Amino acid sequence: MTSDAMPPRLVLKFGGTSMGSPERITRSAAIAANEAASGRQIAVVVSAMAGETDRLLGLAESLGGGLGERETDTVLAAGEQASAALMALALTRAGYPAQAVMGWSLPIHVEGPPGSGRITAIAGEGLEALLEAGVIPVVAGYQGLDATGRLATLGRGGTDLTAVAVAAAIGAQCDIYTDVDGVFTTDPRIEPEATRVERISHDAMLELAAQGAKVLQTRSVEYAKAKQVTLRVKSSFLDPGASAGTEVVEDAAIAERRVVSGVSYVRDQARVSVHGGGDAAPAEALFAGLADADVAVDMIVQARSRAGGAVVECSVAGRDLPRALKVAEALEGPELVVRSQTGLAKVSVVGTGLRGRADVARTLYRVLAQQGLAAHMVATSEIKISVLVDRDDLEQAVRALHGAYGLAAKQDRT
Amino acid sequence: MTSDAMPPRLVLKFGGTSMGSPERITRSAAIAANEAASGRQIAVVVSAMAGETDRLLGLAESLGGGLGERETDTVLAAGEQASAALMALALTRAGYPAQAVMGWSLPIHVEGPPGSGRITAIAGEGLEALLEAGVIPVVAGYQGLDATGRLATLGRGGTDLTAVAVAAAIGAQCDIYTDVDGVFTTDPRIEPEATRVERISHDAMLELAAQGAKVLQTRSVEYAKAKQVTLRVKSSFLDPGASAGTEVVEDAAIAERRVVSGVSYVRDQARVSVHGGGDAAPAEALFAGLADADVAVDMIVQARSRAGGAVVECSVAGRDLPRALKVAEALEGPELVVRSQTGLAKVSVVGTGLRGRADVARTLYRVLAQQGLAAHMVATSEIKISVLVDRDDLEQAVRALHGAYGLAAKQDRT
Repeated sequence: MTSDAMPPRLVLKFGGTSMGSPERITRSAAIAANEAASGRQIAVVVSAMAGETDRLLGLAESLGGGLGERETDTVLAAGEQASAALMALALTRAGYPAQAVMGWSLPIHVEGPPGSGRITAIAGEGLEALLEAGVIPVVAGYQGLDATGRLATLGRGGTDLTAVAVAAAIGAQCDIYTDVDGVFTTDPRIEPEATRVERISHDAMLELAAQGAKVLQTRSVEYAKAKQVTLRVKSSFLDPGASAGTEVVEDAAIAERRVVSGVSYVRDQARVSVHGGGDAAPAEALFAGLADADVAVDMIVQARSRAGGAVVECSVAGRDLPRALKVAEALEGPELVVRSQTGLAKVSVVGTGLRGRADVARTLYRVLAQQGLAAHMVATSEIKISVLVDRDDLEQAVRALHGAYGLAAKQDRT
Repeated sequence: MTSDAMPPRLVLKFGGTSMGSPERITRSAAIAANEAASGRQIAVVVSAMAGETDRLLGLAESLGGGLGERETDTVLAAGEQASAALMALALTRAGYPAQAVMGWSLPIHVEGPPGSGRITAIAGEGLEALLEAGVIPVVAGYQGLDATGRLATLGRGGTDLTAVAVAAAIGAQCDIYTDVDGVFTTDPRIEPEATRVERISHDAMLELAAQGAKVLQTRSVEYAKAKQVTLRVKSSFLDPGASAGTEVVEDAAIAERRVVSGVSYVRDQARVSVHGGGDAAPAEALFAGLADADVAVDMIVQARSRAGGAVVECSVAGRDLPRALKVAEALEGPELVVRSQTGLAKVSVVGTGLRGRADVARTLYRVLAQQGLAAHMVATSEIKISVLVDRDDLEQAVRALHGAYGLAAKQDRT
């Protein structure tokens, strides 16, 4: 930032823990006020107070509602309505006039099933009018209006998506405030040597989120990438201005200084394999059946067995295994054998620098072998490599890979 | 109701205690379902769950908001948003498809200061569409949209007003469900002989409400009178269909069988009197000053004292006395003497049959004299007579007047 240029507009998003009490709201308002004090135009997007969404969901469930049901959307949306107005009060009290703005009033248009809508359009005129009037808009996250004019929610973590959409609508950067100071190279509870990632590409952030890092909602990163919104993940638990955080930027904006951004994991995994079926591999029928049964398939391996028969394997979430097995065992074909394995975990190494680097896979195999850890399945994408290990080996594998890829030093990563 | 005519449309309003828990919501839904089962078209209007408005108000106050402040309206409106959707879930589960409808979505237009708006218009098209589709609209009470498109609330008890407005918009009767089985001739906690009033005129109900009976919000009765909506006050704590309740109807709809409808009271009253001022009574200056100081004046007595000077007296709420005295003591004029009395209570006898009946006042004075109770001030309107008594005499005065006007027998009262 140069001293004489007006800094760009900024959207600050505060999650549930940052809105957990009047004291926490006051503290988050101070962070926002600190940004506004520099003269830049800001907007704020908030989640419901911590625990409120669960409380409201419990009430809805006790009366026959639940996630994925449209009336429940209306129940849940009340949480962000209240917290947005509370934040507006806190900002106004801090000397920065603010006004709560609802998804229905802008409006923010949402399509898709109840409880997991996607934002299709956002009207920015109301936000512009407030900004021009010197009033900070405080947008209720997680919600918008469906095509019939009813309230619709965006699913858990949807307030991140609202924040990015608001940032795109008013041409702002977007700071996501949470309870950690940015994105880390891995889970600090497993590896105390984990370090904060200073900059990461949208793609690598997407892979990290998809592979288990819970800091940012996946769709909000996709939206930020599509709309070229610069995201930062920061902590609302530090003093105003004190959080360095992690910047999520376009690929082109970061030099490829490091191969790997981070190591993420997903705990409860299972494996299903189908052997045989003659020349015609049973893969198509298997995956069609799994899709019909609403089982999300993650890693897929297909090969010929030594005996010449086809082998197809996939990994699924542990809770989905019974349904997956039911599908596999219903397959028809000569000499089909279905096997499964539970008690697995997935560890992923993510980074844009993985592109075309064969040594990344070599390092992975070497490290696991040195540690005496079994690799049950390996799959790669352009910027990640994932391995299924025994669940009991998870922590050891995370620590070993984190060290082997040189993540314990604090600096830029792509 | 005849057996072959379609019964008229019905709006059922459930207050906070009737929405106090999932169990209470389920029970209230059963009452509504019982009405819908007869084939009549119904709509439901709900308050926030008991305690929720106070909880939300407490949060707003802790951040600088409060009643009478526009952002706080948005905080509070979240309570009815959630409860409306919860009621819609309960009705749907009971086999009667229902949908929550917000004040902003109809919309219900509201004017006036934050926290005490009045409904200026209500668009019924959305309600008609749902009714025609066989879906029960469940309207969030207490709220609407102001001229700038922000949420605005109607003040405590405002859900009654929403219910009457919805009834007027769709040509329905309106049943107000609460925790008592109708309007009583006086407070049963003071007089166990108090009986339920079966029918009462809008005017008498208005006087009862204004004089301290808390069953119905005053403005909702005015609105019902203006729009010729038939109101009934019923209990949601009895089995579906079991509450007889009190019907509030037009004057013309009830024969004048009884003189008095009920005895109501207001506890904390005070009296201010100004003596002197020569020929020019200080009344105008006094009441102008009280209005400027936002002190509501209730009873007013003006007379000449024996010495020939003017005397003007008025009653105010006890909490307003310090402000009222400051106004009175600032008056200028020859030989002005200001006196005040606290520790008073107001008892009112209300009934359309009071019109032109001098014996009502005679009975009041006779009863108080027989009981040895001092009457500090008496004022009459067309259908009520009020008396200020010592607060310690309140219960005795209520019981004596209740008995003297023959209210302990259950029958129609006007």
